[in-house]
Amino acid sequence: MTAPACADPALIGVGVGPGDPSLITIKAVATLRAASVVLVPSTETSGDDAGRAEQIVLAACPEVSDRLRRVPFSMAERTGVGPVRQRAWEASARAAEDAFAAGAHTIAFATVGDPSVYSTFSYLAAHVRAAVPGVRVEVVPGITAMQALAAASLTPLVEGRESLTLVPATAGLDAVDAALAHSDTVVAYKGGRELAALLEVIARRGRHGVLGVNIGLVGESITPLSEVDAATAPYFSTVLVAPVRDAAGGRL
Amino acid sequence: MTAPACADPALIGVGVGPGDPSLITIKAVATLRAASVVLVPSTETSGDDAGRAEQIVLAACPEVSDRLRRVPFSMAERTGVGPVRQRAWEASARAAEDAFAAGAHTIAFATVGDPSVYSTFSYLAAHVRAAVPGVRVEVVPGITAMQALAAASLTPLVEGRESLTLVPATAGLDAVDAALAHSDTVVAYKGGRELAALLEVIARRGRHGVLGVNIGLVGESITPLSEVDAATAPYFSTVLVAPVRDAAGGRL
Repeated sequence: MTAPACADPALIGVGVGPGDPSLITIKAVATLRAASVVLVPSTETSGDDAGRAEQIVLAACPEVSDRLRRVPFSMAERTGVGPVRQRAWEASARAAEDAFAAGAHTIAFATVGDPSVYSTFSYLAAHVRAAVPGVRVEVVPGITAMQALAAASLTPLVEGRESLTLVPATAGLDAVDAALAHSDTVVAYKGGRELAALLEVIARRGRHGVLGVNIGLVGESITPLSEVDAATAPYFSTVLVAPVRDAAGGRL
Repeated sequence: MTAPACADPALIGVGVGPGDPSLITIKAVATLRAASVVLVPSTETSGDDAGRAEQIVLAACPEVSDRLRRVPFSMAERTGVGPVRQRAWEASARAAEDAFAAGAHTIAFATVGDPSVYSTFSYLAAHVRAAVPGVRVEVVPGITAMQALAAASLTPLVEGRESLTLVPATAGLDAVDAALAHSDTVVAYKGGRELAALLEVIARRGRHGVLGVNIGLVGESITPLSEVDAATAPYFSTVLVAPVRDAAGGRL
């Protein structure tokens, strides 16, 4: 079902959750089903965060497979800077603009996790808004890897008056260390490449936690930080450092 | 459908999202449907966060209404300390233990948002585990108010190398100010009672953002912080202070 043609064209960033197709929301499924075109980030290497969006969409809404279009995306483009980084949004924006020009009314852009959390959707949307006058932009939130890891490991992220800081390991070890100094709970994304140094910073603060990989997917692993082999952890891993809590409020 | 009686009894914390019943996950709906008993926090005052869980469950899964049981819950118990606070978990734990004793196999405890984020589920679960040997505990994550506000206001929470700190206003103004000093994005929950002072702290740092109330519900409001009337904002409001961003990465 596509939306009535009288309404404004719409570009909708759809969070499809962390990996387990059942962790997608009812609204995300309805939005994907109603879209004229579903854009999914795509890379040539398999098994990473990009191909994962397509896998989730196809598992949760197999009926949209004929409206699915891959747009180029690479990790280097996502995390790089300058012209290299810009190419990724521009390619996505071009794909959306081409689809609008070809008559698409509603375009959904599927992102792993939540479009508001470390996604490129806002860049893509800004480009499309500049090129397609009157386009309506929406975001459908999704469950993040942080939440999936907290649930799977039965580690509350925050309780009572605790604070939580979310920081990408790519921001540097000093940023992670500052977060450990100022927050009760710290979650670091994409720790893979710097994991050995990251674990050292956490241990130096006397803090404990878990490392999550592929939560809710084949190959899921949840490992106490003290037992992690930093050499083998993949790039898309999540480190959750929780406060020390008593028995009643502690890890279940 | 209830799970086979041969498996261990299970207590499952189910995040039902921020309010819009379509922001519940497929897994949460399936879990609520499969439960023998669905516990929902309940208060005598209507329109607050507690009665909201019941409203979401009934809207998303009306077929569980005959298995729904209200457990006493009050804001004072949730945010208080000591014996008063303990009563809330104990009442919930007793309700769960009574249901297991009466033959329930799977008990779902519905919480607004995500059970890992400022919920009392871990306390409840610890009590039940002590009383019901062999009980299996699980958590199903849910969309938080922070994510719903970011989506509805088209304000990315974090991009690139930015960090995010989530802090309850009940932790005090100094905690919020420290978060503003150390994080790119700061989200403060439950700012209602201290909102005037909270807005002053944010303005003193030269920061901007939005206040969200009842996102996705009747009475939804999203207001730039500079236009907020602190006297009328309710307790369950969410303040989102975003970094200053350029046109491409900024607010859409």
